[in-house]
Amino acid sequence: MSSLTDTQNSIDTRNIDITRVGIKDFTLPIQLSSKNNIQHTIAKVNMYIQLEGKYRGTHMSRFIALISENKKPINSNTMRELTIDMCQKLGAKNGEIILQTPLFIEKKAPITKITGLMNYELTYHTRIQGKKTEQFLEVKIPTTSLCPCSKEISDYGAHNQRSIINISAQYNQNIEPETLIKIAEESSSCGLYSILKRPDEKKVTESAYENPKFVEDIVRDIYQALKQQPEIINFKVSSENFESIHNHSAYAEIIS
Amino acid sequence: MSSLTDTQNSIDTRNIDITRVGIKDFTLPIQLSSKNNIQHTIAKVNMYIQLEGKYRGTHMSRFIALISENKKPINSNTMRELTIDMCQKLGAKNGEIILQTPLFIEKKAPITKITGLMNYELTYHTRIQGKKTEQFLEVKIPTTSLCPCSKEISDYGAHNQRSIINISAQYNQNIEPETLIKIAEESSSCGLYSILKRPDEKKVTESAYENPKFVEDIVRDIYQALKQQPEIINFKVSSENFESIHNHSAYAEIIS
Amino acid sequence: MSSLTDTQNSIDTRNIDITRVGIKDFTLPIQLSSKNNIQHTIAKVNMYIQLEGKYRGTHMSRFIALISENKKPINSNTMRELTIDMCQKLGAKNGEIILQTPLFIEKKAPITKITGLMNYELTYHTRIQGKKTEQFLEVKIPTTSLCPCSKEISDYGAHNQRSIINISAQYNQNIEPETLIKIAEESSSCGLYSILKRPDEKKVTESAYENPKFVEDIVRDIYQALKQQPEIINFKVSSENFESIHNHSAYAEIIS
Amino acid sequence: MSSLTDTQNSIDTRNIDITRVGIKDFTLPIQLSSKNNIQHTIAKVNMYIQLEGKYRGTHMSRFIALISENKKPINSNTMRELTIDMCQKLGAKNGEIILQTPLFIEKKAPITKITGLMNYELTYHTRIQGKKTEQFLEVKIPTTSLCPCSKEISDYGAHNQRSIINISAQYNQNIEPETLIKIAEESSSCGLYSILKRPDEKKVTESAYENPKFVEDIVRDIYQALKQQPEIINFKVSSENFESIHNHSAYAEIIS
Repeated sequence: MSSLTDTQNSIDTRNIDITRVGIKDFTLPIQLSSKNNIQHTIAKVNMYIQLEGKYRGTHMSRFIALISENKKPINSNTMRELTIDMCQKLGAKNGEIILQTPLFIEKKAPITKITGLMNYELTYHTRIQGKKTEQFLEVKIPTTSLCPCSKEISDYGAHNQRSIINISAQYNQNIEPETLIKIAEESSSCGLYSILKRPDEKKVTESAYENPKFVEDIVRDIYQALKQQPEIINFKVSSENFESIHNHSAYAEIIS
Repeated sequence: MSSLTDTQNSIDTRNIDITRVGIKDFTLPIQLSSKNNIQHTIAKVNMYIQLEGKYRGTHMSRFIALISENKKPINSNTMRELTIDMCQKLGAKNGEIILQTPLFIEKKAPITKITGLMNYELTYHTRIQGKKTEQFLEVKIPTTSLCPCSKEISDYGAHNQRSIINISAQYNQNIEPETLIKIAEESSSCGLYSILKRPDEKKVTESAYENPKFVEDIVRDIYQALKQQPEIINFKVSSENFESIHNHSAYAEIIS
Repeated sequence: MSSLTDTQNSIDTRNIDITRVGIKDFTLPIQLSSKNNIQHTIAKVNMYIQLEGKYRGTHMSRFIALISENKKPINSNTMRELTIDMCQKLGAKNGEIILQTPLFIEKKAPITKITGLMNYELTYHTRIQGKKTEQFLEVKIPTTSLCPCSKEISDYGAHNQRSIINISAQYNQNIEPETLIKIAEESSSCGLYSILKRPDEKKVTESAYENPKFVEDIVRDIYQALKQQPEIINFKVSSENFESIHNHSAYAEIIS
Repeated sequence: MSSLTDTQNSIDTRNIDITRVGIKDFTLPIQLSSKNNIQHTIAKVNMYIQLEGKYRGTHMSRFIALISENKKPINSNTMRELTIDMCQKLGAKNGEIILQTPLFIEKKAPITKITGLMNYELTYHTRIQGKKTEQFLEVKIPTTSLCPCSKEISDYGAHNQRSIINISAQYNQNIEPETLIKIAEESSSCGLYSILKRPDEKKVTESAYENPKFVEDIVRDIYQALKQQPEIINFKVSSENFESIHNHSAYAEIIS
């Protein structure tokens, strides 16, 4: 075995730093830790380091070994530890891990209080550059939006649709995904549920009608709420409304 | 060149017929012929023949050559001609071509009559088995559905959403995609438009409210309309409603 | 609550049976039971019943309640139990459940024996029609294929690529996904691994070169192996090769 | 008609600028102008303006009208004109248009010179901020990569696979997509072709074997070539290799 040439370790004369190199879309089961809860889920992971100009290649198998050996539930802290560990094992000053996973939350229907699981896509992103660590959390929240113009001009009814709200926040102290989900759902016309009985459906329909929101309203209301969160440094919020009257989306985005 | 072994042409001793072999997801620009119109568009094509047990492999480059050399606008007739030609060139008794392409149609807004292009996904599918030719046309039609239960039980409003209706019809005489699109849009709560001014939005909102439809209603109404079409031999119709109050879809399907 | 009209339960005068109606793409965490192992994973579920012509609509929330309340690990037996339970709760003679989930398997590298997790997409499908139950298992297995023609005609090297083998089997006794995966990997040029050290990479490279396979060879070899499995009634096997020299796929399929 | 309230035009008291608001994923047929050629194709378009804090909403139908009425072939110049026009029609200081479309190029096989169409995904992106205009062109180029380590350590063969190279360049003078495609194909182990005869397949196989490239080599060689292009201000280049021996990708990226 020792006789096999280590081509990756040969010297590179082009002397060009590579901003990111590593593995993409590696899928594995993980445990996810959030608020009062640890859950089993599945993650898709990208792991990159910066490669200095003098090295020809990185060692791809070390990334897989590192993430596969991790047994700790994923949260902000473990993301930071894993990224530090990766930089050390790969001999890199800079590196980042991007981990995407669904989060399941038990949600009560508004009237009958029957519970069902809602799923939200999370992306944890930790970036180390020398001594600096930056951490980001992105959450995709599906909601309902009901059009204020349609309501205003129509004798009855109003078009509404599923919307995907996307909040990506850089934070200095840990922030729970549940906090961002709550803000998004309260800023939309109505939240979604996996299970609704007729009294719930009545409530949800009327709530949406009472809370008409343009795509612009949604992102502005979320902007105001996120500005109140001391643990958030800066953020991007967007909403994509899959218009029920068009075959394209309405979209709005604020970068703080 | 003549000295390069033709591995595909060697004899295969396993003697197992291959149901379908060929190329998948080849993308190319085409012309599409429908009703009174020829349009430039882009197609994704799958081309398969049945390979007899005695041959080791087919000749993949001949499929690409055949479809690349075609200059005729695509419709039922050219699909049949191409499939016959393919079977001959590949020495096969059975073969099929599946060609997927968007169709663009100018559509007038209901009140202002302002026009905009709507796009629909078509799939032409021609299958030859010995002397028998079967032809299928599938169309995906995005529409609005408004929930009758939500309307009935709520003091105001009703949840509605984008729905995708899918009609797949086997026909004995040519059938235009426009015929299937018209049936689908008339059987939903309301059709979609790429451009609507306020008076149109009022009309569309009120029309949907006046035409509440369960996913079950949509497929049944389309079933009744398709049964009246003499050129259709049999069909499958489905509707998927991307529920504005849930994070999953409601789905119904009738196979005639 | 009791005063809210049950619109779904009203009588339908069109009198058209609906082949399938229910929920699509509902996502939830499950436990998956296979061979000697129970694992936590995430499933996407479609649940449909046949709706008789006299009923206007089905009760969508019952599907979600049923699958959400299940606590048993998923395998053939629980799939059948859940489908029977669903038909009873919805008052239907016919119904089916389609559940898609990744399966993770620990796999040893060929030389260093270092272990890593490989993921495979499974689909369990159970269909009840009156007294008849049909069960299907579909597995997608990513492998390597190396072109025999390219090897034969070239002075050195041979183009190779990732291929996705898809086996869908109807079975009369329980069949483990691991059995289908083993057959697929042994019938390809070489299996994939999540982690390989240099001696493993040498072995894998040379093995693929020693086992060149056309897309036709792969499906024929799998056909022969599946024919030996007494628990399989009939099957479909396909391979899609994401050609490293083309921007489209080579594809072959045998229906038994 | 004039009596319908213009809700979007009402005054907004939150006074929060919206970074981007408009339409997303609108699909339409276009003409694409590149090098010596105008071709019919299909584009997916996003159009956004910055909305000042005092306005409640933008006018979504104006975006669709603007792009639908354009009859000029798309290139850098028309992208800039359309973006300027959009900002004027929407009364915005800042705005951007992002247009994605395939480009088809006739490519000759290396030995037999038989021609076939290759497709590449382009994204034109023009951003106006006050008096400043920025223009970007992104091209995705599918190629072959062959692993130098696998070649070096193996007695015969070498794993190779399809790779997607992505070049995104900001330019000050017009740059043709063909220039970026040529650089990418020359920097990979070998380019792809839609149609190859046996002598071509021999050539392509041997060329890839003679030009082994790590994902790191590919992005470094492209970096060096792009640095020689005077019309490019800055760029990002990445390569994703869909490893034929793994179920995940190797990835490298340089930001200039």
